[in-house]
Amino acid sequence: MNTSASAPIGIFDSGIGGLTVAHAIQELLPNESMVYFGDTAHLPYGDKSEAAIQAYSIKIADVLLMKGCKVIVIACNSASSAAYELLKEYVRSVKIINVIDPMVNLVLDKYAGRAVGLIGTKRTVQSGVYQRKIQEAHERITVHSLATPLLAPMIEEGFFDNKISHEIIAQYLNDPELQNIEALILACTHYPLIKKEINEFYKNKMTILDSSEVVAQALKQHLEESKLINPGIGPVNHQFLVSDYTSSFEASTRLFFHEQVNLEKHPLWGS
Amino acid sequence: MNTSASAPIGIFDSGIGGLTVAHAIQELLPNESMVYFGDTAHLPYGDKSEAAIQAYSIKIADVLLMKGCKVIVIACNSASSAAYELLKEYVRSVKIINVIDPMVNLVLDKYAGRAVGLIGTKRTVQSGVYQRKIQEAHERITVHSLATPLLAPMIEEGFFDNKISHEIIAQYLNDPELQNIEALILACTHYPLIKKEINEFYKNKMTILDSSEVVAQALKQHLEESKLINPGIGPVNHQFLVSDYTSSFEASTRLFFHEQVNLEKHPLWGS
Repeated sequence: MNTSASAPIGIFDSGIGGLTVAHAIQELLPNESMVYFGDTAHLPYGDKSEAAIQAYSIKIADVLLMKGCKVIVIACNSASSAAYELLKEYVRSVKIINVIDPMVNLVLDKYAGRAVGLIGTKRTVQSGVYQRKIQEAHERITVHSLATPLLAPMIEEGFFDNKISHEIIAQYLNDPELQNIEALILACTHYPLIKKEINEFYKNKMTILDSSEVVAQALKQHLEESKLINPGIGPVNHQFLVSDYTSSFEASTRLFFHEQVNLEKHPLWGS
Repeated sequence: MNTSASAPIGIFDSGIGGLTVAHAIQELLPNESMVYFGDTAHLPYGDKSEAAIQAYSIKIADVLLMKGCKVIVIACNSASSAAYELLKEYVRSVKIINVIDPMVNLVLDKYAGRAVGLIGTKRTVQSGVYQRKIQEAHERITVHSLATPLLAPMIEEGFFDNKISHEIIAQYLNDPELQNIEALILACTHYPLIKKEINEFYKNKMTILDSSEVVAQALKQHLEESKLINPGIGPVNHQFLVSDYTSSFEASTRLFFHEQVNLEKHPLWGS
């Protein structure tokens, strides 16, 4: 396995949501190359079983290791919850970073004794993974969670910054569950795209905890500690792989990555 | 291959949408048994490539033929558009019925010289399959199509008959594209679940063409012509197969089939 500093960072998600994490990594670590895998044949993971997500994650990790990645970032809450422990056991040669633990650590660090809100897909909220990890640390932090299942399809369909998205966001954020909180965790990699609208709803008076930025920070810290930061001598080269290809999907990656992305098809199973 | 009258009807969709078709078949043909396949590992088909949908459809047809089905109903617009011609060639032993042609035939029959509206997923509308088939028949019918991509996730999440669903439905149906029409085609198997709300929007003054009912009629006609109607001597027995299983998915099948469904897991590919 290649764990040299010039090796790329591996990132995966069921589809395009994780590109918000990839974008945050690019902003923070501009010398790093990335191999991004979007498992578009199985997107979205939110309605797939744990066993299925685990099997997909193993197959994807094999691809990223074949590409010589020096670290693997699980840029998806469903896969972080279902497959992180398994991938840690399965992939021993490189570090696995998930999207949940860096956020949990930040909350434990800054919100002891306080109450935070959390919005995410039905699967993430029902799994209770954030609450469980926070309780395991014995900090007195209350997490008020609300499943907001319409937000991800709404964002994917480009329905944001308009009357309907304002209405849907307001209906969710006005929910009794989310009152009396001191910060709001965006526990879905799609949500950074509506951060502006969420800030507007709260008139900029709520701290919005955006996991894409928090994960990029955790990755930077790991690379520094492990002396794996790319010194920036060679060219930066990103590669984007998908298990199923459509041109409309390629077009919408621009929304999430803020620039043109060329997708290569790489099926996980032969037919 | 089993093509006896007592054999079951095979039906498939990417997930639960096709259960509205299965329900309409059960209402119209109560003596028939059904084998339903929901390709939940790959749902939704709307954002998958044509080649991928074709491969999934072949694998599913093999399963339905193994179960001895006497006819196969493609209860999904995306699969009907992408894989019907292929399945007709691949499966020669039994008839393939798709959700598009029965609706096209009804429109040709009743709306010559008039204008009809159509709502469906982005994929169905962009494929232009309804317009093309209608034009091929040289009838002067205008089809005004609008992609309404938020409706299927909205319905799956149980967001209907409330303020947000009224708002979303009204915003779509008020679109300039859908004015001056004499009927509205529901070109997605999820939409029968919001037929009541659509009727309310139009104050019951619009003819709503619901493909689940139209397909059930076409199936009945085929079975009668082929002398394959189940005489109703043996017990009726439905089987529901899915390529990935989750309990929350099983719970939501009730919405679409109007009664309890027990899902059996049947992966299309081994891992």
